[in-house]
Amino acid sequence: MWDSLWLDVHLATSDDRIMSAQDGYGCIRNGAIGIQNGTICWVGRQADLPDTPEALANRIEHGHGGWLTPGLVDAHTHVVFAGDRSHEFAERLHGVSYAEIARKGGGILSTVRATREASENALLEISAHRVRKMIQAGTTSIEIKSGYGLTLEDELKQLRVARQLGRILSIRVHTTFLGAHAVPPEYAGRPEDYITFLIDTLLPRLHAEKLVDSVDAFCESIAFTPQQTNRLFAKARELGLPVRIHSEQLTLGGGTALAARYNALSADHLEYADEAAVMDMARQGTVAMLLPGAFYFIRETQQPPVDLFRKHGVKIGLATDCNPGTSPVLGLTGVMNMACTLFRLTPEETFRAVTSVAAQALGMEKDVGMLRNGMKADMNLWDITGPDELSYWIGGMQPVRRIFSGTD
Amino acid sequence: MWDSLWLDVHLATSDDRIMSAQDGYGCIRNGAIGIQNGTICWVGRQADLPDTPEALANRIEHGHGGWLTPGLVDAHTHVVFAGDRSHEFAERLHGVSYAEIARKGGGILSTVRATREASENALLEISAHRVRKMIQAGTTSIEIKSGYGLTLEDELKQLRVARQLGRILSIRVHTTFLGAHAVPPEYAGRPEDYITFLIDTLLPRLHAEKLVDSVDAFCESIAFTPQQTNRLFAKARELGLPVRIHSEQLTLGGGTALAARYNALSADHLEYADEAAVMDMARQGTVAMLLPGAFYFIRETQQPPVDLFRKHGVKIGLATDCNPGTSPVLGLTGVMNMACTLFRLTPEETFRAVTSVAAQALGMEKDVGMLRNGMKADMNLWDITGPDELSYWIGGMQPVRRIFSGTD
Ligand SMILES: [Zn+2]
Ligand SMILES: [Zn+2]
Repeated sequence: MWDSLWLDVHLATSDDRIMSAQDGYGCIRNGAIGIQNGTICWVGRQADLPDTPEALANRIEHGHGGWLTPGLVDAHTHVVFAGDRSHEFAERLHGVSYAEIARKGGGILSTVRATREASENALLEISAHRVRKMIQAGTTSIEIKSGYGLTLEDELKQLRVARQLGRILSIRVHTTFLGAHAVPPEYAGRPEDYITFLIDTLLPRLHAEKLVDSVDAFCESIAFTPQQTNRLFAKARELGLPVRIHSEQLTLGGGTALAARYNALSADHLEYADEAAVMDMARQGTVAMLLPGAFYFIRETQQPPVDLFRKHGVKIGLATDCNPGTSPVLGLTGVMNMACTLFRLTPEETFRAVTSVAAQALGMEKDVGMLRNGMKADMNLWDITGPDELSYWIGGMQPVRRIFSGTD
Repeated sequence: MWDSLWLDVHLATSDDRIMSAQDGYGCIRNGAIGIQNGTICWVGRQADLPDTPEALANRIEHGHGGWLTPGLVDAHTHVVFAGDRSHEFAERLHGVSYAEIARKGGGILSTVRATREASENALLEISAHRVRKMIQAGTTSIEIKSGYGLTLEDELKQLRVARQLGRILSIRVHTTFLGAHAVPPEYAGRPEDYITFLIDTLLPRLHAEKLVDSVDAFCESIAFTPQQTNRLFAKARELGLPVRIHSEQLTLGGGTALAARYNALSADHLEYADEAAVMDMARQGTVAMLLPGAFYFIRETQQPPVDLFRKHGVKIGLATDCNPGTSPVLGLTGVMNMACTLFRLTPEETFRAVTSVAAQALGMEKDVGMLRNGMKADMNLWDITGPDELSYWIGGMQPVRRIFSGTD
């Protein structure tokens, strides 16, 4: 007997085996899903069930004609931080300049300061508050980066909190080491020394504590160079850790090409990526992780090269980039609409971008991101008439039920 | 004895008697609110309460250190319609041209067709589904326009559904007659005849049924001229009905100046309004109702003249413009962020724009839009550290409790 059986639902599986030229969602209308031990054990048309529902499962769940999708996967967040910057946001709108805000200690280093000052418990509590909102909006797997600690003690604290969120909340957490987020005050003017510290001390120690699932770097003119990033990625490879990168957000800097050489899981932002960088990504299977929340919030006008990704077969992912400075975004459906409206992605592309493609960018594609036999039963039930609605509505788009490992 | 007393809360009252140059929210930290018969009967600092809480009220409500605000007022919506256009949205993103979509019967007339075809019960059900999402996002008062019926029978149906929503859901409804939304197929090429029909038949009949609280017109090059609008507004004045207008969204067409001459409650959209129009609004106290959802969704680049509104003291309101073609927006907090990000409004301006100013635009300023003695006890409790957060976060911003007429 299965534990449960979902009936009276339509399925948008995000399963490429089911998709066709006419159907980029992998739809099964009048579908059914069987669940056993938190895992999907049957997917298909209700009419094709091998027996009567009561003979198949202990519990029958009714979808009331709604749509079931995979739980959403948010593959790029900085959600563990203290000190939101809504006050700085307000100051800027009152005409205070960036320079003045920086002089008063604002910007990313204000988040670093607040995160360092927070106790581990306090940091857990405020981060859980945010992640609960993301969960409510349909997220079931999330990537969480370090990078607001920038000392051994504080990066440890940040990543321990990230792991802890995965224990206390019904969400899967992938942790990313982003020590190379900014040069901390202690290393001001000495970025190479800071990279050496990351390579010799910070990354090995965090890795030994099993706190690191992947390694990231902020490779931009205002942060770290490709050469510095290369030193860090060489160490990641030595430790057997996959990499990802923040690149080509503000300029064409070369980070994407570098990351592709390391078989990066994803290159993220990419507004300024050129065709050569896109071809490098295509060769290595690196996902293009677009972050329209940041594009929108900082009023960027340079569009990421969506047509080049399509032309070269680079898969497009989407994430919230949840962070206090440039993307205070808590829900993935809003991001889906932004990707359509601002980047002209199709609703089918945005759907895959927050399910199967996002899962691939986290190396979790065997477990989540599709409604398929053998996958975790992480799912959302939506009261919509079709999956296009997920990208169409702005605000108010929440699953009516959210299933994690087979249960509400 | 009061019915209830709120303690352990901060208040953002939106009350101009409490505001100062330093505080555009009208904040009372460590505040308290007494409620009697669904009406606010006491507002102030908890320390100034005239007696012990238990002696004052039958029920004590705890805000747990959160913020209470007035319930949100959405002063421009077309939320009663059948046939969402998510499929058309998807088609456009797949490269189908507007012309092709129109040829296949898409666009506003497809919504008219679907709304006409829907039974009154079906229309009520799908509209209630949307309004429930708006309620969840914090809205307690809403304007609802007709304009997808465009026949006597169907405009009656649409406005009866709007009134009915106010009876079955915990929300106050202001109805607006927007027969002058589009020229229906029956009057193709005969807009003057259609206006005559509105004046002689439709508006008087709907008014007699007490279904009309105000009269609106879509005054644009693609819809009705100022002269046609003038004919309609003269009839509205004769019937004693206030007016509002859709104007200067796509071009500087003169509708705003016309509406101001009729003491319009609001002029809405206004991207192309010039200083003369703004001065007309200032003279008549007409609210500038900005609709950033539509601006965002249709990728408009012309900014409304926010600095001119400020210079001339025109009050700025904000609304969802919820409609299937150009603004499928269901929550006001998302609109607050868009107003800050896209129009550079301050968080204080956006807060007043969806509370006290929006109430004024509906002629409801005596009843709702502020936390003030004598006002309806329509309130939201938010788990935020300050009201700037309402405009700052994108997605996930929902009240933790919503009070309507004093109760949850
Ligand atoms: Zn980031
Ligand atoms: Zn409108």
